[in-house]
Amino acid sequence: MAADNESMGESQRFAKFVSDTRWEDIPSNIRHEANRSLLNFFACSLGGSRDAAVKALAATLSPFAGPGVATVIGRQEKFDPLNAAFLNAVSANVFDFDDTHTPTIIHPSAPVAPALFAFAETSRISGPQLLLAFVLGVEAECRIGNAVSPGHYKRGWHITSTCGVFGAAIAIGKVMGLSAEHMKWALGNASAQAGGLLETLGTMAKSISVGNAARNGYLAAVCARQGVSGPERPLEGPYGFLNVTGPNANSACIVNGLGEHWELGSNTYKPYPCGVVLNPVIEACIALARDERMSLSDIERVVVTGHPLLRERTDRIEPRSGREAQVSAQHSVAVVLTDGKAGLAEFSDACAAAPSLRPLREKVFVVEDDSYAVESAMVTIYLRGGNKLSLTTEQARGSSNNPLSDADLEKKLSELVDYSNAPCEKARLIDAIWALDTVDDAGKVIALAAGVPR
Amino acid sequence: MAADNESMGESQRFAKFVSDTRWEDIPSNIRHEANRSLLNFFACSLGGSRDAAVKALAATLSPFAGPGVATVIGRQEKFDPLNAAFLNAVSANVFDFDDTHTPTIIHPSAPVAPALFAFAETSRISGPQLLLAFVLGVEAECRIGNAVSPGHYKRGWHITSTCGVFGAAIAIGKVMGLSAEHMKWALGNASAQAGGLLETLGTMAKSISVGNAARNGYLAAVCARQGVSGPERPLEGPYGFLNVTGPNANSACIVNGLGEHWELGSNTYKPYPCGVVLNPVIEACIALARDERMSLSDIERVVVTGHPLLRERTDRIEPRSGREAQVSAQHSVAVVLTDGKAGLAEFSDACAAAPSLRPLREKVFVVEDDSYAVESAMVTIYLRGGNKLSLTTEQARGSSNNPLSDADLEKKLSELVDYSNAPCEKARLIDAIWALDTVDDAGKVIALAAGVPR
Repeated sequence: MAADNESMGESQRFAKFVSDTRWEDIPSNIRHEANRSLLNFFACSLGGSRDAAVKALAATLSPFAGPGVATVIGRQEKFDPLNAAFLNAVSANVFDFDDTHTPTIIHPSAPVAPALFAFAETSRISGPQLLLAFVLGVEAECRIGNAVSPGHYKRGWHITSTCGVFGAAIAIGKVMGLSAEHMKWALGNASAQAGGLLETLGTMAKSISVGNAARNGYLAAVCARQGVSGPERPLEGPYGFLNVTGPNANSACIVNGLGEHWELGSNTYKPYPCGVVLNPVIEACIALARDERMSLSDIERVVVTGHPLLRERTDRIEPRSGREAQVSAQHSVAVVLTDGKAGLAEFSDACAAAPSLRPLREKVFVVEDDSYAVESAMVTIYLRGGNKLSLTTEQARGSSNNPLSDADLEKKLSELVDYSNAPCEKARLIDAIWALDTVDDAGKVIALAAGVPR
Repeated sequence: MAADNESMGESQRFAKFVSDTRWEDIPSNIRHEANRSLLNFFACSLGGSRDAAVKALAATLSPFAGPGVATVIGRQEKFDPLNAAFLNAVSANVFDFDDTHTPTIIHPSAPVAPALFAFAETSRISGPQLLLAFVLGVEAECRIGNAVSPGHYKRGWHITSTCGVFGAAIAIGKVMGLSAEHMKWALGNASAQAGGLLETLGTMAKSISVGNAARNGYLAAVCARQGVSGPERPLEGPYGFLNVTGPNANSACIVNGLGEHWELGSNTYKPYPCGVVLNPVIEACIALARDERMSLSDIERVVVTGHPLLRERTDRIEPRSGREAQVSAQHSVAVVLTDGKAGLAEFSDACAAAPSLRPLREKVFVVEDDSYAVESAMVTIYLRGGNKLSLTTEQARGSSNNPLSDADLEKKLSELVDYSNAPCEKARLIDAIWALDTVDDAGKVIALAAGVPR
């Protein structure tokens, strides 16, 4: 057996692992992380469900869509499962407020969860079946992401899209009960569809590649079931995904420690809808705005000090859109000191364009200091008359070492539903997500997130 | 204006060129080449329409498909336009018998023509509108292919798929009358979907990437019309298609000589369904089998001499499938000397597995000689008793310098219809394709290729 295993390629070994793994094999902390990821997924998808990109894509796909059997989260339309998976992935990711697999910066849930829930509305599967497939789908995309990191993203690939398609394929392959051979074909059929470029970030085109990851991964698995064959080594072959999109890919990441180490354990959730490097800055500003008595008009200068990445990624004094505001230290400081909070409204196009924030943004300076970790930052406010207020965040919430609590995630869902105004019974949905491992029909859970007034 | 033009990026300049170009701007030889390409497209698609990959993919997509308004060539089902475009691209390319753009080895028609004909069945467009959009779509994919060649294919990208999606996007953008700005978005929306790996060659998974090129290109343009925005420089941007998938891409290829040099002029059509390097070998064998009196049992040895690529790509004594037979000099020589012809039946899985060909295949040797051009080869047959027959093909048919005639293309369509047994009125279809530039409703032409008995 061991020798056999060694003679198999990484694609085949991974496919066999997926076919063989049972719900009983998943440790309880990883099971709970699956619930947390799905709660965060529904939160983000509900929050994004009324965004212009989701609307435009739903309108585009509608004339081509098959029978409407699957829920579009936060919306009234129903679509065929492939298109529903596409649209729910788009809404989950449109604000980049979704989860982050720290080693790769993949957003793991957006491609995988929508495919599974769309499947669950057409073929009855239990909660544990869905959760197991979710864990394995995330395992696939994140291990493939590990294998091509860091060269892949650096070269310009939108890693959530390019790797996500494998996650959706494995997840759907698992709920369909594919054999190891067909599971490998599902990987091959996914490899033929992997795409997505960083150049599209900040435009709606990015959402197409994220939606495709969910849709095309789903399709890859259904193709495999139907007999559409793939190559023997879709990942590690000389012209396979790893070598072509690497560079310097390490195929051992696909199989090392399978069943012992779970990638979902490295998943994190954002407290604020902006670049993670801004988290410690925002937290310091929230505390300063809450605790210190100052008038905004007294502020002469704000100095933000942090890890070099902070300056590199976010020193942006004039964001031209909500998307740019999400990666602007100047905007973040100005809006949080003004409003006391940092939700989607504070990073909207309208807020980015608000003339009232401009004077304060111009007073914010970013200083790099490589003694700071990326999860920490200091904010110092210089006031007229010589006074100075300063606060340091040591460990921003939302990082691996200071994760959002279950209650934080519930609150995030509640606030995002309020933001998008989707007519969703929040408490029932939250309860249903926590109870997923006990239900016979996982499809009923997503139905609770439909944007249909009850 | 000139200065303006220079300040624009290549994506924008190309988009503007497409928006501005009229049917009157297309030279007559290029117009005629468009008819020839489409004739060859219908021939290949009809020939491939009953292949197992087409059947499996049609069965896979059927439950997810929208209203059936568009023809699937050679078949009875109708599908929504996106899925019909997908399936017709698959059938056109499944045997690699379709056209070849010599500089890039892109198969230009498979992604572009199916998207246009599917569109023509839902929105009335004239023959010249379709032909103009076809010429421009081919221009897009082949110029982008030129820009990334040869590094792109060498790295492992299936260039027909990766570049084809841009061709379909531009073609559909043109028939929809997109502005230059929206045309650029269509390029961006296509860039988010470009994919396809050489590792999948020889498996059905390859067909998924070719089908997606047509489908996703179509989708990219409809998205752009609906307001789905793309980046400013989807092709030449730092993380755009050229830089990410190059390497060593040359963005000047996108715009140099626009409107003066037309890529469709470099399109070629295969006389035989196999690797083009085998064309001169097959022709010599057909002539030897026809003209020489010999018994196969008298053959002691066959020596094939040609360009180094011939040995490198086709020295394959035991093909395990029809796909491998297509790139086997041994199989090609054996089957042609035996049957006297080289059609799809001679490169089927069944024929590759036929035990009767085995003894002859084992007597065939490939010798490289770099004094031969790739379009030429010598076949020498050593007979028992010391006699020797030898024939050299100087310039194989199907190459740029010895193209198939219009009559050859008509014959190809006829033979491929006979092969697949599709119930198609060949003469009416052929006439309609030649007359495309005179018709008001291009959608009627593809209806003639439906696999519906009349």
